[in-house]
Amino acid sequence: MSISKTTSKINELNQEAMKKAQNHLNSLTKPKNSLGRLEDLCVKVAGIQGKEPEINNKKIFILAGDHGITEEGVSAFPSPVTKQMMKNFVNGGAAINALSNYSKADLELVDIGVNGKIESDKIIDKKISNGTNNFYKEPVMTKKQAKKSIKHGINLVKEHAGKSEVIGLGEMGIGNTTPSAAIFSTILNLKPEEIIGTGTGLDDKGIQNKIDVVTESLKRRKPSKEPIEILSKVGGFEIGGLTGVIIEAAAENKVIIVDGYITLSAALLAVEIEPKVENYLIFGHSSGENGFERIINEKDFDPLLDLDMKLGEGTGASLAMNILESSVKTYHEMATFEESGVSGS
Amino acid sequence: MSISKTTSKINELNQEAMKKAQNHLNSLTKPKNSLGRLEDLCVKVAGIQGKEPEINNKKIFILAGDHGITEEGVSAFPSPVTKQMMKNFVNGGAAINALSNYSKADLELVDIGVNGKIESDKIIDKKISNGTNNFYKEPVMTKKQAKKSIKHGINLVKEHAGKSEVIGLGEMGIGNTTPSAAIFSTILNLKPEEIIGTGTGLDDKGIQNKIDVVTESLKRRKPSKEPIEILSKVGGFEIGGLTGVIIEAAAENKVIIVDGYITLSAALLAVEIEPKVENYLIFGHSSGENGFERIINEKDFDPLLDLDMKLGEGTGASLAMNILESSVKTYHEMATFEESGVSGS
Repeated sequence: MSISKTTSKINELNQEAMKKAQNHLNSLTKPKNSLGRLEDLCVKVAGIQGKEPEINNKKIFILAGDHGITEEGVSAFPSPVTKQMMKNFVNGGAAINALSNYSKADLELVDIGVNGKIESDKIIDKKISNGTNNFYKEPVMTKKQAKKSIKHGINLVKEHAGKSEVIGLGEMGIGNTTPSAAIFSTILNLKPEEIIGTGTGLDDKGIQNKIDVVTESLKRRKPSKEPIEILSKVGGFEIGGLTGVIIEAAAENKVIIVDGYITLSAALLAVEIEPKVENYLIFGHSSGENGFERIINEKDFDPLLDLDMKLGEGTGASLAMNILESSVKTYHEMATFEESGVSGS
Repeated sequence: MSISKTTSKINELNQEAMKKAQNHLNSLTKPKNSLGRLEDLCVKVAGIQGKEPEINNKKIFILAGDHGITEEGVSAFPSPVTKQMMKNFVNGGAAINALSNYSKADLELVDIGVNGKIESDKIIDKKISNGTNNFYKEPVMTKKQAKKSIKHGINLVKEHAGKSEVIGLGEMGIGNTTPSAAIFSTILNLKPEEIIGTGTGLDDKGIQNKIDVVTESLKRRKPSKEPIEILSKVGGFEIGGLTGVIIEAAAENKVIIVDGYITLSAALLAVEIEPKVENYLIFGHSSGENGFERIINEKDFDPLLDLDMKLGEGTGASLAMNILESSVKTYHEMATFEESGVSGS
């Protein structure tokens, strides 16, 4: 299915369902609005689903890809770690395995551009190429590949999301804070030094190098604000794939939980493609990555959690799912003033 | 057991266990410190438990009491709601029921000073009196009662905490943000207008009245900073009880999760009684209540969550338990670099 055919199916939130949900929340045994953002979440989910909010199944897609830009020394970890970590996800040894065990979200592991074959039947094969090109030297991929990455994301949701009402975004790709920074810089007109941090553990010299690499790369690649152009010039396969996951999930009235720095860059691309997507996003976790706050302030996004994490993998999304599901539980399990005999204010 | 006998059993955190825990965290397949506050939580729990962090059982104590100060029109809800809400807790219809179902924490409901008898075998009877006196006119309780409330709290943990490694603090008491404000003002030398907000839903006129009532009451009662004196002059039975819960939980090397505005006032009293208590506290949720931020900045406390909630009942503590337990799961379930074959940085 074409990208525009998918985006054409994305609706405005259902205002009537939202109003009904808020009215129900106001009838429950608590001071009005005293559950704060938990109530906002219920109302938003009602608006997305067009009915009383309901969450029974949750899924986290982890899309993995490698990045040519790592040649420029922008990451503290070597490229082969992308593939090694995918094996670690398969074996259940990563942070996201532990956290999604707790939040009871299913993981879907996707190779969309890892350098090298990973032997496992637990990994969905959507590989476009063995990693991107180095955008310091050339565009990361063709425009055709950029579109393909988005379409792969669309198909991932169609084929694997099943009945899940909530989709968490996860990623793995050594070096991928660098294309994300280039995307933020391009879309939001921010200077690389405003939004580049330590990644997985750079020192001051490493950070300066990363800033220099992104600054010079953007001068050379000159991406416009057109999403496919951005993706093809300075993006990444997993970033494009996540963009596709987002627009299809929105088209299917699913709740989308953005994880952190990298998934946010995919979310911005999705919003550039279709602004209505923004209504379907829940920002799960702020990022400890330098500049993240600058970015979310720019867009007036307000993540649910801020636990100084900077890991990705969907870890922030998974933690936020606990909050989201808790909120929907209050909606359904609490008694009304009338039922309980508690006097209102 | 006397209060001082309990506090004498409170130890410093076990530094060796904390160091070991951090070393283990550093060996896991993630960039160093990338789990942020989740790692801090593991280390703290290790320090409290003197071993590798472990959480199998969680409990939330909800202590309830009424407040004579409601005569001065300081609350949007009428006093009988305290008793009605206790019935609601028993019947499973309150926010804390839904949230603790999700976090799998056991609730213990305690009547330590509710006005009127609540017929239920699910409520622990530690009633000292049918509500406190009105501290605008007289001390809320005798010093003997203040001590008794703390001892009741100590015994609650001894008798009902069982094997729970984590104790969440909850409360119910219409009007109890007012004694809490008086306690904050006294201990932290803050003016009532700096720390008084809407409570469960006061308008501007109501807030001004509440400020005036607390200001005048503090002039009349003149509490020193001595905890028993504060409790007896401007406190509350559930606040004293929670103070006791905190010091006994600390003495038993249990992790304590502070909920919000009211439980924080009990925590400050406990810290005044024995400063080492502070090491055992996790601040679960910031409060939407005006002035809360002023208070936590003063003490350099940093709550895990900030979801604009202002409900109490232990709701913030229960949500924070999900984060705490998730952190301990990463500690035990993640693979090390060595085990997984993932290359380090």
